[in-house]
Amino acid sequence: MTIKVELQTPILARNEETAEEIRYLCQENNIYLVNIMSSPGAGKTTLLEKALGYLSKELRTAVIEGDIATTRDADRISAHGVEAVQLNTHGACHLDARMVYQALQKLEWSQLDLILIENIGNLVCPAEFNLGEDLRVVLLSTTEGNDKIVKYPVMFRDAQMLVLNKVDLLPYTDFSKAEMEQDLAGLNPGMEIFYVSARLEQGVEEWADRLIKLVKRSAAEHENLGQS
Amino acid sequence: MTIKVELQTPILARNEETAEEIRYLCQENNIYLVNIMSSPGAGKTTLLEKALGYLSKELRTAVIEGDIATTRDADRISAHGVEAVQLNTHGACHLDARMVYQALQKLEWSQLDLILIENIGNLVCPAEFNLGEDLRVVLLSTTEGNDKIVKYPVMFRDAQMLVLNKVDLLPYTDFSKAEMEQDLAGLNPGMEIFYVSARLEQGVEEWADRLIKLVKRSAAEHENLGQS
Repeated sequence: MTIKVELQTPILARNEETAEEIRYLCQENNIYLVNIMSSPGAGKTTLLEKALGYLSKELRTAVIEGDIATTRDADRISAHGVEAVQLNTHGACHLDARMVYQALQKLEWSQLDLILIENIGNLVCPAEFNLGEDLRVVLLSTTEGNDKIVKYPVMFRDAQMLVLNKVDLLPYTDFSKAEMEQDLAGLNPGMEIFYVSARLEQGVEEWADRLIKLVKRSAAEHENLGQS
Repeated sequence: MTIKVELQTPILARNEETAEEIRYLCQENNIYLVNIMSSPGAGKTTLLEKALGYLSKELRTAVIEGDIATTRDADRISAHGVEAVQLNTHGACHLDARMVYQALQKLEWSQLDLILIENIGNLVCPAEFNLGEDLRVVLLSTTEGNDKIVKYPVMFRDAQMLVLNKVDLLPYTDFSKAEMEQDLAGLNPGMEIFYVSARLEQGVEEWADRLIKLVKRSAAEHENLGQS
């Protein structure tokens, strides 16, 4: 176990520096950055595909797609007319700030209000890496079971928003919403929760509306700061 | 990206040494070791709970449970009268050989034929760590989508057996068995595939029977080697 601590300290310290650069760059350009994390197959890409229709009406949006391999997710996003940068980590189990910084270089900052980062499907490692984001969203799907919250506490403690996906499958699983809400109340009491079925496009508009509000509020705050 | 390579080389080399010790220890004691991996919530513990009834009739079985936090999974296994050792990694995203070696010290080797390791729920990191196992099983659930195979190629290439779980939910998902089989045929042509619903206990007996055969065949081979 000591091995892990020895090695991760310098990596995480270096990551924090780059995350700060990203934060500065986004603030300067009035861009709101969202880091979306989940298990593999929880439905991140499908949620984004369905939400982009609502988001794009109000905000100039781009997506950074993190995957071990393939450009499948970026291709799915691009098909909706939204710019998507695919990062392939070739084995690395999370995105780090340096990878995101590289992806940001590919985007036209002055043309954007919102950048959504779809992290690697993994409930463990991505939670430890600050990407300079304004908002951390964790997606959980009902078919994974409600015990994931206590079993992966860092992920569910450090995110500000939970999206419970695949609510249409609730009747066919043993998922307990009551237990989930109780565990979250203990671990992360301020967390906002959204209930969606991305595949059936239920609840997606509400989630997108909330994102739009957060982006606009953040932009207004920056403007006020700039004037004062 | 270079960071990762620099650091993982010594870790993986050290891991290989310990994995070899585990392999030797299991061979000496005629124990068959299975490493079971999947995404969080794919159903590893439920599959084991349902399979143990069949396995325990023929084999003296123990389980090593890997989790970031909680003893929930070991408690679920113990409730079936099977010895379970819980490993809590406190943040580490995979089991390594050293952790498994420590867990093995807690078990009575002369009383066992089969040890099942339930790895951390993660499709990335566990694939890189040899645990000295005789068999690697990867569990995929239909609700995760069939694209996981091409998106997490190391995991699906290096396992000898795939268990597709939650087949009862196939009608409610976009999962394509045909695409899955085609992708596996390209990536890992010799892979054995089992179709199960652990929750509804469909196909579990067939999987358990196959494990029992593999364990008995391995034991017979060791015996022949010892005599020759």
